[in-house]
Amino acid sequence: MSDALQKGRDLLAEMNPGLEAALASRYDATIPDMAETLVEWAYGRQYAREGLDLRTRQLCTVAALTAMGGQTGPQLKVNIEHALAAGANEREVLEVIWQMAIYGGMPAAINGLNAAIEVFDRAA
Amino acid sequence: MSDALQKGRDLLAEMNPGLEAALASRYDATIPDMAETLVEWAYGRQYAREGLDLRTRQLCTVAALTAMGGQTGPQLKVNIEHALAAGANEREVLEVIWQMAIYGGMPAAINGLNAAIEVFDRAA
Amino acid sequence: MSDALQKGRDLLAEMNPGLEAALASRYDATIPDMAETLVEWAYGRQYAREGLDLRTRQLCTVAALTAMGGQTGPQLKVNIEHALAAGANEREVLEVIWQMAIYGGMPAAINGLNAAIEVFDRAA
Amino acid sequence: MSDALQKGRDLLAEMNPGLEAALASRYDATIPDMAETLVEWAYGRQYAREGLDLRTRQLCTVAALTAMGGQTGPQLKVNIEHALAAGANEREVLEVIWQMAIYGGMPAAINGLNAAIEVFDRAA
Amino acid sequence: MSDALQKGRDLLAEMNPGLEAALASRYDATIPDMAETLVEWAYGRQYAREGLDLRTRQLCTVAALTAMGGQTGPQLKVNIEHALAAGANEREVLEVIWQMAIYGGMPAAINGLNAAIEVFDRAA
Amino acid sequence: MSDALQKGRDLLAEMNPGLEAALASRYDATIPDMAETLVEWAYGRQYAREGLDLRTRQLCTVAALTAMGGQTGPQLKVNIEHALAAGANEREVLEVIWQMAIYGGMPAAINGLNAAIEVFDRAA
Repeated sequence: MSDALQKGRDLLAEMNPGLEAALASRYDATIPDMAETLVEWAYGRQYAREGLDLRTRQLCTVAALTAMGGQTGPQLKVNIEHALAAGANEREVLEVIWQMAIYGGMPAAINGLNAAIEVFDRAA
Repeated sequence: MSDALQKGRDLLAEMNPGLEAALASRYDATIPDMAETLVEWAYGRQYAREGLDLRTRQLCTVAALTAMGGQTGPQLKVNIEHALAAGANEREVLEVIWQMAIYGGMPAAINGLNAAIEVFDRAA
Repeated sequence: MSDALQKGRDLLAEMNPGLEAALASRYDATIPDMAETLVEWAYGRQYAREGLDLRTRQLCTVAALTAMGGQTGPQLKVNIEHALAAGANEREVLEVIWQMAIYGGMPAAINGLNAAIEVFDRAA
Repeated sequence: MSDALQKGRDLLAEMNPGLEAALASRYDATIPDMAETLVEWAYGRQYAREGLDLRTRQLCTVAALTAMGGQTGPQLKVNIEHALAAGANEREVLEVIWQMAIYGGMPAAINGLNAAIEVFDRAA
Repeated sequence: MSDALQKGRDLLAEMNPGLEAALASRYDATIPDMAETLVEWAYGRQYAREGLDLRTRQLCTVAALTAMGGQTGPQLKVNIEHALAAGANEREVLEVIWQMAIYGGMPAAINGLNAAIEVFDRAA
Repeated sequence: MSDALQKGRDLLAEMNPGLEAALASRYDATIPDMAETLVEWAYGRQYAREGLDLRTRQLCTVAALTAMGGQTGPQLKVNIEHALAAGANEREVLEVIWQMAIYGGMPAAINGLNAAIEVFDRAA
């Protein structure tokens, strides 16, 4: 196992323990190694890096997915959950999303707020 | 003057004191009130909000502009400078940009790294 | 109240009288001042400007939301209604959307046509 | 009838014989000549060109729609079907989609995989 | 020659008489029929349609290209010229572009303003 | 060294032997492991996969980068070179790019053609 894969798994053990198995069960039969690749690349090679704390990393991801528009809705919701798990509070998540109206436009920001409200309601 | 415009001006007095005058001199003759509108909306109504610190706000902007792609190059550079002014260090800016390879793709991240290196070199 | 906020409210009183209250009731508890900010910025600072008639402004918004793609579907539908309220007819709305196939691509145009047909059917 | 329209119809007679009639019945009453225009432009002037085989053309379309993001979901599904009709196999379609994670980002690739799995399940 | 190609040529004879020849000389040796296809599709099948006046069509194009971002800079400039040729004035072009800050974000609108100022300066 | 990193290096040894060193020299001092990560992820985990030949993979990348728009210009040029290195001819590259007018719009396709012509001229 590569170092990066191990680091990714270690990080997910805290943040979202079932993610790799869920990906593997849905995708690996048709697209071999998909789950392992995603964990190695996104978590091992990126989120596990030094130089920036995980809470800020996750808020930046929420910002980017909001600004890129609603087509990434499912991933925005997962990353809102990850931002909360990394120590951000709900207000901070909403502030990041609303600020994106300057860059991604008003529709993208409103779609992002709706995604966040849905995540918070589900968790309540 | 609206409260929001005042708040925006107060914030820019610290972050980028010449911005409103520069915008006014370039745009207001042809598109009246452009500078004032931008300060009121982007700085007064958004960056001056409570609920999230300015450093995180600026890193989130860097994230979004990177992920949206290189067409926002000039604005990305301005906001990298704002992120440094708000207390982020160069490594944090680079980490945010590189992480965007997961969401905006590898070309967007590389273009973002190039923009940051240019800003840092200019400042050096 | 800022001038821009007042202008935005005056404009919405004709175009979509319930919009600010609907936004406030959905968003303001979690993201304070969201509704007021949107009215001030989008309607007071933009749609209420002189120099271009409201019907053309709304058709241009329909064009942009279509070309940017279907992730802005809910906002595209609201702005199709606003375009009709500003004096455009259904054929003009469809022509604008279909023309966007040149710029946003065929899928974006077809998704836009579907959104328009849905709005017109609902109104019928 | 233009040569291009004829070429487009000839090509669709093999790939998707009902497409022009389906488009005409849904759109032509409100946006005259829409179906004919699409067939002439997209199939007659593009897919019927020489210089590249149809299977590669369709895989390239799957790549682009995936990378552009989930807002083109319905069109992505139609073009996955067209790629299979042009001789690509399911694995090739999935490989193209997954590779787009490098360019359009991980969320776009995952949304694309989900679209493909839906098409394959429906066909099974 | 198809009807659509003839209509496209008739329209360009008024708006931009050298366009087809310029495209043909640059592209047709390597990508046969490129110029003819563009004229037939974009001008004959779209801009020459009834149901909406050319001035509004061109302003809608300016709106869309602005909102889609600066990667379409060269085409934005050509279409600003076409909008002026179709009877729009400079102020109307700028208003359309500035309004796009609501939908495509502030950087896209500012890049659009810069493109317009460049076109107007060149013409002066 | 991970298997994926080795596979990526083996592939690049044929396609673009200097790429990793060039990336390392430009980026690794400021963003540690950038070059290694890119080779492992993009080449080892993606282009080196089985299930689709490299020529088709590279043409699909050209398609996606064209449709996503000109902000990825530098990467589009590199991948046009990779497509030629993988066995595609110039005409095939141009056909893929031009076809993208259907999906990414006419401006994106024209910008793509210009990028390809520049690559071919440089090589001539």
